Amino acid sequence: MQQYFPDTFLFGGDYNPEQWSEETWREDMRLMKLANVNMASINIFSWAQLEPKPGQYQFGQLDRIMDMLAEHGIMADLATATASPPTWMSRLYPTMLPVTREGIRMSHGSRQHYCPNSPDYRSKTAELVQRLAERYGKHPALKMWHINNEYGCHISKCYCDNCAEAFRAWLQERYHSLETLNAAWSTTFWSQHYYHWEDVLPPRISPAQNNPGQVLDYWRFMSDSLLACYHVEENILRTVTPQTPLTTNLMVAFKPVDDFAWAPDMDVISFDMYPPNTLPAWQVAMSHDHMRSLKGGNPHLVMEMSPSQVNWMPQNPQKRPGILRLQIMQAVAHGANGAMFFQWRQSLGGAEQFHGAVVSHEGSEHTRVFQHVAQVGADLKQLAPEVANSRVKAQVAILMDWENWWAVEYQPGPSNRLRYWEQVSACYRPFHRLNVAVDTVAPESDLSQYRLVIVPLLFMLRPGVAQNLQQYVGSGGTLLTTFFSGIVDQYGHVVPGGYPAELRKLLGIHVEEFDPWTAEMSNEVVVKEGTFSGTYPCTLWGELVHAEGAQVLGTFVHDYYADQPALTVNHSGNGRAYYIATQGNDELLDKLAAYLCHEAGVEAVLESPEGVEVTKRVRDDGRAIYFLLNYNKQAQSVKLPTGTFRSLLDGKVVQGEVEVEARGVVVLGE
Amino acid sequence: MQQYFPDTFLFGGDYNPEQWSEETWREDMRLMKLANVNMASINIFSWAQLEPKPGQYQFGQLDRIMDMLAEHGIMADLATATASPPTWMSRLYPTMLPVTREGIRMSHGSRQHYCPNSPDYRSKTAELVQRLAERYGKHPALKMWHINNEYGCHISKCYCDNCAEAFRAWLQERYHSLETLNAAWSTTFWSQHYYHWEDVLPPRISPAQNNPGQVLDYWRFMSDSLLACYHVEENILRTVTPQTPLTTNLMVAFKPVDDFAWAPDMDVISFDMYPPNTLPAWQVAMSHDHMRSLKGGNPHLVMEMSPSQVNWMPQNPQKRPGILRLQIMQAVAHGANGAMFFQWRQSLGGAEQFHGAVVSHEGSEHTRVFQHVAQVGADLKQLAPEVANSRVKAQVAILMDWENWWAVEYQPGPSNRLRYWEQVSACYRPFHRLNVAVDTVAPESDLSQYRLVIVPLLFMLRPGVAQNLQQYVGSGGTLLTTFFSGIVDQYGHVVPGGYPAELRKLLGIHVEEFDPWTAEMSNEVVVKEGTFSGTYPCTLWGELVHAEGAQVLGTFVHDYYADQPALTVNHSGNGRAYYIATQGNDELLDKLAAYLCHEAGVEAVLESPEGVEVTKRVRDDGRAIYFLLNYNKQAQSVKLPTGTFRSLLDGKVVQGEVEVEARGVVVLGE
Amino acid sequence: MQQYFPDTFLFGGDYNPEQWSEETWREDMRLMKLANVNMASINIFSWAQLEPKPGQYQFGQLDRIMDMLAEHGIMADLATATASPPTWMSRLYPTMLPVTREGIRMSHGSRQHYCPNSPDYRSKTAELVQRLAERYGKHPALKMWHINNEYGCHISKCYCDNCAEAFRAWLQERYHSLETLNAAWSTTFWSQHYYHWEDVLPPRISPAQNNPGQVLDYWRFMSDSLLACYHVEENILRTVTPQTPLTTNLMVAFKPVDDFAWAPDMDVISFDMYPPNTLPAWQVAMSHDHMRSLKGGNPHLVMEMSPSQVNWMPQNPQKRPGILRLQIMQAVAHGANGAMFFQWRQSLGGAEQFHGAVVSHEGSEHTRVFQHVAQVGADLKQLAPEVANSRVKAQVAILMDWENWWAVEYQPGPSNRLRYWEQVSACYRPFHRLNVAVDTVAPESDLSQYRLVIVPLLFMLRPGVAQNLQQYVGSGGTLLTTFFSGIVDQYGHVVPGGYPAELRKLLGIHVEEFDPWTAEMSNEVVVKEGTFSGTYPCTLWGELVHAEGAQVLGTFVHDYYADQPALTVNHSGNGRAYYIATQGNDELLDKLAAYLCHEAGVEAVLESPEGVEVTKRVRDDGRAIYFLLNYNKQAQSVKLPTGTFRSLLDGKVVQGEVEVEARGVVVLGE
Repeated sequence: MQQYFPDTFLFGGDYNPEQWSEETWREDMRLMKLANVNMASINIFSWAQLEPKPGQYQFGQLDRIMDMLAEHGIMADLATATASPPTWMSRLYPTMLPVTREGIRMSHGSRQHYCPNSPDYRSKTAELVQRLAERYGKHPALKMWHINNEYGCHISKCYCDNCAEAFRAWLQERYHSLETLNAAWSTTFWSQHYYHWEDVLPPRISPAQNNPGQVLDYWRFMSDSLLACYHVEENILRTVTPQTPLTTNLMVAFKPVDDFAWAPDMDVISFDMYPPNTLPAWQVAMSHDHMRSLKGGNPHLVMEMSPSQVNWMPQNPQKRPGILRLQIMQAVAHGANGAMFFQWRQSLGGAEQFHGAVVSHEGSEHTRVFQHVAQVGADLKQLAPEVANSRVKAQVAILMDWENWWAVEYQPGPSNRLRYWEQVSACYRPFHRLNVAVDTVAPESDLSQYRLVIVPLLFMLRPGVAQNLQQYVGSGGTLLTTFFSGIVDQYGHVVPGGYPAELRKLLGIHVEEFDPWTAEMSNEVVVKEGTFSGTYPCTLWGELVHAEGAQVLGTFVHDYYADQPALTVNHSGNGRAYYIATQGNDELLDKLAAYLCHEAGVEAVLESPEGVEVTKRVRDDGRAIYFLLNYNKQAQSVKLPTGTFRSLLDGKVVQGEVEVEARGVVVLGE
Repeated sequence: MQQYFPDTFLFGGDYNPEQWSEETWREDMRLMKLANVNMASINIFSWAQLEPKPGQYQFGQLDRIMDMLAEHGIMADLATATASPPTWMSRLYPTMLPVTREGIRMSHGSRQHYCPNSPDYRSKTAELVQRLAERYGKHPALKMWHINNEYGCHISKCYCDNCAEAFRAWLQERYHSLETLNAAWSTTFWSQHYYHWEDVLPPRISPAQNNPGQVLDYWRFMSDSLLACYHVEENILRTVTPQTPLTTNLMVAFKPVDDFAWAPDMDVISFDMYPPNTLPAWQVAMSHDHMRSLKGGNPHLVMEMSPSQVNWMPQNPQKRPGILRLQIMQAVAHGANGAMFFQWRQSLGGAEQFHGAVVSHEGSEHTRVFQHVAQVGADLKQLAPEVANSRVKAQVAILMDWENWWAVEYQPGPSNRLRYWEQVSACYRPFHRLNVAVDTVAPESDLSQYRLVIVPLLFMLRPGVAQNLQQYVGSGGTLLTTFFSGIVDQYGHVVPGGYPAELRKLLGIHVEEFDPWTAEMSNEVVVKEGTFSGTYPCTLWGELVHAEGAQVLGTFVHDYYADQPALTVNHSGNGRAYYIATQGNDELLDKLAAYLCHEAGVEAVLESPEGVEVTKRVRDDGRAIYFLLNYNKQAQSVKLPTGTFRSLLDGKVVQGEVEVEARGVVVLGE
Repeated sequence: MQQYFPDTFLFGGDYNPEQWSEETWREDMRLMKLANVNMASINIFSWAQLEPKPGQYQFGQLDRIMDMLAEHGIMADLATATASPPTWMSRLYPTMLPVTREGIRMSHGSRQHYCPNSPDYRSKTAELVQRLAERYGKHPALKMWHINNEYGCHISKCYCDNCAEAFRAWLQERYHSLETLNAAWSTTFWSQHYYHWEDVLPPRISPAQNNPGQVLDYWRFMSDSLLACYHVEENILRTVTPQTPLTTNLMVAFKPVDDFAWAPDMDVISFDMYPPNTLPAWQVAMSHDHMRSLKGGNPHLVMEMSPSQVNWMPQNPQKRPGILRLQIMQAVAHGANGAMFFQWRQSLGGAEQFHGAVVSHEGSEHTRVFQHVAQVGADLKQLAPEVANSRVKAQVAILMDWENWWAVEYQPGPSNRLRYWEQVSACYRPFHRLNVAVDTVAPESDLSQYRLVIVPLLFMLRPGVAQNLQQYVGSGGTLLTTFFSGIVDQYGHVVPGGYPAELRKLLGIHVEEFDPWTAEMSNEVVVKEGTFSGTYPCTLWGELVHAEGAQVLGTFVHDYYADQPALTVNHSGNGRAYYIATQGNDELLDKLAAYLCHEAGVEAVLESPEGVEVTKRVRDDGRAIYFLLNYNKQAQSVKLPTGTFRSLLDGKVVQGEVEVEARGVVVLGE
């Protein structure tokens, strides 16, 4: 696979010199050097500057910015500026503005005020991108193209007539005939049969819940519509500047955009990362693992994070000392090759004037935050020769699926407490605690490289997925599937004949009923034998399960399914397929994860005390780099494998055991 | 009164064969027999199937369904299919789509997307119903017409221009002149005088609270508009098929539709019943008593209930074993002649694919739910010869009034904690606990058959109502009225001169002030003498009451009306009129109900332990049937009247005392 | 300054005789005399009565009302009736109706359904006011003009095309060129540059947060638009009836209307006062102090209050006995020259039919509320010769600024817990507890008359404000500023170079970071020396402060700014400038206020027990009147200054100490 990163860590941030005088630009260059910055994302919201009148472009300022960056050895992550059209465009092309489900057309005045299916929007972006590519394709500062910005943020769905027409075209492509569409959408229900294509509409406001097939397809269509916008730009850039890598900044746990569908067309996976201060470290870790997995383990990039506070949470406290360094080192520990900030210099006006920045309103290097950033930059510089472009390797995978997410959260459904991302996260947490590396995989992925695959809440099984899982287990893999899986097909149609349908044989069970609990309801799971025997509270969901060949490991304790299976394992081919029919408490999930790792031969990187995370990157030459991250407010000791290690940040030689200071980081090379 | 029910219980459910292959139809016939089903509601959402093009109808599939039902001895409750128009109709008749208060026109894509005042909608429904009536009027399967479906569900108010015009016509009919309208709506207030009919509009969104007279009349008008839709269909069916009974399925505690106004034009009262699992049994009982009362005690029908879970609550747990049987037996115990399910066979797609059904997605008879349903069907078959068409008779009535409901919940009003249905329920609960049968009555009803009449929160007294109550008490009746009654007339105008105006003399009191409490406020009522002396907490509402002839039974304990009347009785003619000026706690209401029953000579069916409900139906031949329903998780004993009884479900002979098993039912015949 | 009040207290209320028969009018005259009423506000919602057809006026009824008032010696506060246009106007001038941010045009049917920038609305109001002025300008009943009613209530912002056009005109006036506008709004941010005036719009609904400059200017513009409506009427009235004082009723803590901008054009400051029963007395006191301050200490008027309950809170309890008298005496104690009720006679219909009134639905004088009102009226009559037109004088001022309010609450911002009015209130509370009189002042006010000035949360410093504060301190004043002050300029642009920018030198501090806390976060302030040494909890907000010349009085105890300044004082010129960087608890603020008063030589009126408020008015002849208000449910004693006092309500002579009964009032003259 092509290597898109230089042999260093990218470090820098969004830089908006158009908000500042050229005198300030010069000061920025000085400060960037002080902060060890080597990359700047520029031009993100510059369309209005670049195209003051329809078709008349002015590139003088951008030329000067690019030249200045080149001169100072700062790489440009050059944005295509298409995320926010100029104000005059709303007047000339009024249907470019997005429309809500209620039919209300939005106005300009903030950002991202475009309908992704507006032909006008698409042709104007193509025009702009063509010019940018031609003008800057060979500029020495250009290192990477940054296409648009945070696709789908704010406007992930539009319901205008352009979208209606594009939706029909998309459906015609997918279903060919109205007959097939009617079948797919189950329009015999509620008298919804379509006899004319023109009657097919986006799921606009209607008296009751909209057709779930229509809603599911609209989610698919809108992710595709945004991706089509990306393709418009991508095609131009690949033609004009084929050597320059492309990225766009994804977001974390962002339901409207199917990361797996986008990743193949991106060269570098970058994403924006804004964890609230109270978010546990394992949840941040999961987002890195997912981003890294999108390109098969290639390094990813944090495109945006705040050096301290943000401005859009209800309240926006500062990051406490040490936290930023921990977060950046965690990114690297999970495979990232760089960390960029939003933003370099804090704006004096505009809606984000109180978002944190490396250079604060004060404007100097003498602040706590600037110093902290510069220190992390120095750390990264020091680590780069040993660490950059090394990779994280995982034996465990968690299966994720956007279409399943869209389908299983349709409301009103069996339970509004069933949140897909939460379920994926619940499966991830115990492995993180064990210091076991985890990849995320799509349902159709080749699973053969993994010893253990976790399949949370896979409500929808698209064609071939059951076979993929079957083959994986048959070949000796270990699989854990959780409740309410294997229910519907790719149309969202229930597969009749007994749940979990296509997984029934693999799992050796038959689910007669599912029982979505209210917050007041609960049960317990008892495991009578083995390494994790005990009784564990469970919540959220129960099922009436019959074993059909599976061995029962745990049973429910109460209610009408007392003594019926809650946790099972089925031997299938050379592997084993586990099933859990409820939401176990942390203790059960921790023990189950440890048990599954043991059964599947999965090894932890190291054991560590509570609150200390340990990961490993492996270099091309096979040497390992260990990252020890201590989130506690007290120092902690970690036992090392036999051998001698170099502590890459302070140059010390360590063996046996190493102390990691409070909120500290130790990076060890073999 | 004509008997519309056969001498059996109706048992079956919504059946949507258009969603299934004809092979599945044949399996359905086999399964219906196994489940003891004798009726199917069909054609409810089939308009799109029946009329694929404007004016072109295709009845082939429906013919086959009707023939199949006839062949298998299943009665058809044949729906007119008018609840959801075909999708092409939105395009041809765009003003058929309903409009919100904000002026937003809705789209098709769910169901019931019609404005009830659309002339197009009405003429298209007439056209369809005419054809259905002509084609199936003499079909052997036809047992009952099911007009439309759940009128007003989702769209109980429309604010479009069609509605505006119809509203003006309705007002002209009611008020004749603008002068009268202005007086009725008190338009001297806030400069609202109307000089032109065309300026009179629905209560669309406006800067502050809309005129309460306008709002009240719009509630009246919209209930009438929906009823007018019903009349369009009713008139056709009565002309073409005068022998076939008509029904439409009402809903429980459904504010937009005035049950009392609709009942006279329905032959069979049917309703949809979806109590949450946590709803106490007495609240379900009240809905049966109300439905039974709508046709003077004639049997009613549960048109829809779920055999287990639903899909539209936030979370949707299964019904626990035994609950469904208890619910159906409770329906019968309160006078129902049948119970139908939504739905027979669970849909594979569509917005309700996870709503419970008799035949689950699994598709077999081997499920817990199917077996339970079949068992209840067998029970009903066994009870039918003794019980069907017998009647419940009540000595107590609770007065209900939809117009009062609309008026008293106008917001902003004295208190948003004043919910009419809650107040009616609060008055019903203690009688249910005593096993005393209760009817509901409209304000103008003949009350002479009752020994005790309860009038909760009768804020609005329409003309003649005060006289009706006066006459009832004068003739020896016992009346209890609760706080904030007798305040306004039919226009919502306060009747000046001292509350409770027209009831002042009857009750022998004068209410100087009412004092709506916040949740933090409370008081106590002390009753110093008699069978229920004691001190009782009270909440929600206080009043400053002066006795004007009434005897003071209880007084407030605290605050500025300490020692002033809280509970009074006035002797008037041969009867007694009680008044309570606050919301007493359960204990006070229980004791007061028992006291009133004793005073009025009202007899309980039987005494029973907590959680055991006892009712009585009486056959034409005068023999009584007792229903003993045990909602507890433990068996309970009930003492019987002297004599010997046959236990109709198990054939045993019992006397003296009978044990009812946990969640069990005993039905005893004299 | 001209004296606009007679030598009595105004006492009466809103009177709507158009809702009643002329027979009732005669009864009203009798009852007004009984209640000691001397003024009635009439004609507020009479436009529909006055102008039944376009341009055709009928004044007969109003003539009779005015004549009747004159005949009975009741002064008329004559409203211009422009607050609610007739219904026919919506049809003739549809763009007169206001439009929401989403583009939804509102309907008539409630009140105040006008866009303040509608040329039609303005010309129709001018026409009406001209006629009223000419007809009643010399009527003997006329005492005061009541312009419109509660400007901005319900509709404080409109987003229609008329407003868009007026907004552009307003901006052109303010900024002259688009270039300046772009700079002011920081449109380099998010590609928002404007190249054409026609692209500049109100902040209509858009995908993300609207430009803060645009939002701030729209708040300014809409307050100005409402004020322009006022000016239309004011100009006519000043021309036709130059001798008659003008008022309009302001509201309390009403963010959309900048009181300070309006006050110069009003003759009498009147306002509507509806404190919930649970609101502490000090918050009501603050609203009086603010209203009094608007005209430099001239007496103000309570234009509306409820004699007991209102109808628009979620629940609306009655005022407990004694509360109304306390509230009216508190108004007088803080400088009011009268108290008026909404309303005189309770309406039988309309949206406010359950709002309390002096004459209740009962219609007699024999109610608790009427008797209480009449008693207060008698009290006021008795006090008038000694008290009316005397004045309250304050040595302490709190700075308030509407533009700052609009700017600092922009969301998303640093913290949604930062509410400007709460911060102002938090600064007011301790002085009220100390019985220290407080004025409110605008940022540009002459501060020289005050010994102590408090500046809460002055986020925005408009030009000259810093200099004003500097000069005040330099001349010997004592100043306290609170956190997050001195951040932005009049455009909302952050002033770079280190917070608090223009205040940095005055305060002798440098704020490196602000840290907005979540509800779960807190800290403590320790004061190590002096009269209020101790450790105090603090919440809401922290800052990383460096002293730059200031003396550190208190420091934070925890977190990364432990031991850093939390409370400082800087000696500057002849004065002292204090700064507090967090929200101290009540104890800290109480002690700090006492300390500052002591340091600044501010004297309390008297010391009093908890729950007893003491104020002082001073007559032109220099004699003082003391008001002692006891909010407790027990009597309390208050120590008096040496000397002998007359108790003006009971004529007793007191000295040394006086007992104030529970919920009682004592007024003492020197």
